[in-house]
Amino acid sequence: MKQTSFYPGPSTIHPSIPSLVKDAYDTGILSVNHRSSDFMELSFAAKSQLRSQLNVPDEYDVIFISSATEAWEILPQSLTSKTSQHFFNGAFGLKWAYTTENLGVEVIKSPFDANESLPTDQINSLADWLCVTACETSNGTMVDQNVLQELFSRRLPHQLIAVDATSALGGVILNFQLADYWFASCQKCLGLPAGLGLLIVSPAAIERGLLLGERSHYNSFLKLVENARKEQTHYTPNVLNIYLLWRTLASGPSIEVTDRRLRDRMARLNSIIQSNGALDWLVSDAYLRSPTVITLKISDPMELKERALTQKMILGNGYGEWKENTVRIANFPAMGDIQFQIFMEWISNL
Amino acid sequence: MKQTSFYPGPSTIHPSIPSLVKDAYDTGILSVNHRSSDFMELSFAAKSQLRSQLNVPDEYDVIFISSATEAWEILPQSLTSKTSQHFFNGAFGLKWAYTTENLGVEVIKSPFDANESLPTDQINSLADWLCVTACETSNGTMVDQNVLQELFSRRLPHQLIAVDATSALGGVILNFQLADYWFASCQKCLGLPAGLGLLIVSPAAIERGLLLGERSHYNSFLKLVENARKEQTHYTPNVLNIYLLWRTLASGPSIEVTDRRLRDRMARLNSIIQSNGALDWLVSDAYLRSPTVITLKISDPMELKERALTQKMILGNGYGEWKENTVRIANFPAMGDIQFQIFMEWISNL
Repeated sequence: MKQTSFYPGPSTIHPSIPSLVKDAYDTGILSVNHRSSDFMELSFAAKSQLRSQLNVPDEYDVIFISSATEAWEILPQSLTSKTSQHFFNGAFGLKWAYTTENLGVEVIKSPFDANESLPTDQINSLADWLCVTACETSNGTMVDQNVLQELFSRRLPHQLIAVDATSALGGVILNFQLADYWFASCQKCLGLPAGLGLLIVSPAAIERGLLLGERSHYNSFLKLVENARKEQTHYTPNVLNIYLLWRTLASGPSIEVTDRRLRDRMARLNSIIQSNGALDWLVSDAYLRSPTVITLKISDPMELKERALTQKMILGNGYGEWKENTVRIANFPAMGDIQFQIFMEWISNL
Repeated sequence: MKQTSFYPGPSTIHPSIPSLVKDAYDTGILSVNHRSSDFMELSFAAKSQLRSQLNVPDEYDVIFISSATEAWEILPQSLTSKTSQHFFNGAFGLKWAYTTENLGVEVIKSPFDANESLPTDQINSLADWLCVTACETSNGTMVDQNVLQELFSRRLPHQLIAVDATSALGGVILNFQLADYWFASCQKCLGLPAGLGLLIVSPAAIERGLLLGERSHYNSFLKLVENARKEQTHYTPNVLNIYLLWRTLASGPSIEVTDRRLRDRMARLNSIIQSNGALDWLVSDAYLRSPTVITLKISDPMELKERALTQKMILGNGYGEWKENTVRIANFPAMGDIQFQIFMEWISNL
């Protein structure tokens, strides 16, 4: 039996990938010029599929980038006039704040505890952007859409909202109307090989870009938007992954079905954890947990991972401050229900 | 019969790609975390193969980036203290100069004619970097290694040399010792799907990076080097393409064999062109032509392309100022000798 990776980094990819690559090769799309109409049609098809599958509003632009990390830089570089406020409770949210700071933008850091809800009452009036990590992959917490709705309602008229949707996009229902700048990578809930990022932006974000007029970088926002609207990219894009995105979305269920499926698995795991003395949730309030990155406290993570490995299961290390006392499990859509069931049975017999 | 793309953009990829992707999937490498030892071993293996196959000096660092276009930005951002001199005779060399200028670096533009050799006697003493496009994909010219040798010998002690090796790396023999900063994308002579770039740098380039100490960008050079030396990347890399790079290089011939093969095809095509009235080389001096991007003058490119298409061959459009009177043909290694032969027979019967 093959090993199953539950790592919430690049994780298990769709089992259909090898045969879809064969299809891609056979159609010749991997050899077409990225300025050709063939590529433009593919780009349009992939984005249309994404729009309909994930309920991306018509008026939002969808842009192909290289990784979510790249999106951390585009925002301060092109869209922030002066100040950016970062709400975070873990390592990736903090990294995003550092990236912004390094680029010379004033950063207001608003940390909160992993066991508390995002403090929507702490909006700073100086901030142009309010930055939120939808799913904090380091500790498995999620900013619920109701909390985002609250942030959206409380923000000042000049403020826009940016959401790092890594480990969330493609796995859970997102209400795109609640923010202006969404981004994610394809190797998490989209179940593809790594090497493609998505940036989804509101008309207000584009208006802000036009106002600031920043055009001096490789990844200047206006260049990205202008190219995307022509179904183009300024660089040679990862055509294979765009093709795989299109095909996997086209053959997959709607986000409502996927969201329900992941939450069901999570609920079933929860009842096992509750009757199991060896393991506990890092975050006690179920409302604060991400349905996609399961983070469990354990006294000896190394021993658990070794035991899992004898069963051909790779569990994810803890991360950052939770490195020594947690394991992480990707509950991503590409992970088969059978594999997840095997994992749960193993956990229940520990 | 499938169409054959002779486009010198993303072009024909290795026919082994679908089965290698299957291998990659079966080994599980596409699902491993990019911080794991499995990824680090793959990264090391791919770079070692690249080093031995392309004769990259031991003391040079090899860095995985997203595209060659990205490398245009890294140089001015992190390695140029003030002034950069750009020698160019076509659209891509000029784009590189613009990218540099946009980032606030002083640019000395040294254009030269496509029918002339790079003017190595025009080195400006103010320049920190001398920038050269090895193969100018817009017009099919190549800066010969002897010319690069001359530039290398004439440069001042404080000057380093950067070479855009897109459309050259993996196809022709390059003497890496003659420059300090080399870069290319994998979808040209390396015959892979698009989405991976390579940056190969000398100890002097690294010394320059340390001297300037620039660390504030997503792609800051020192971050790239430090990660690469740990067989890591700061972002989630295109693991699939790194795997494909390793496997295709491992099963391919040495660069000496490939270089000879491409030049042979070029020479055979040359004798056909010389006895054919309808077509001529854009560049009359054979010494100035790239062996990898064939650029032919023709009064009606559109008509030729349409005729080629009836034979299932996609010829490349002309580019920029040569758009209306040339066609371009990729003479890349992944293009089979049989396909190339079919193309030559067709040309000879025009």
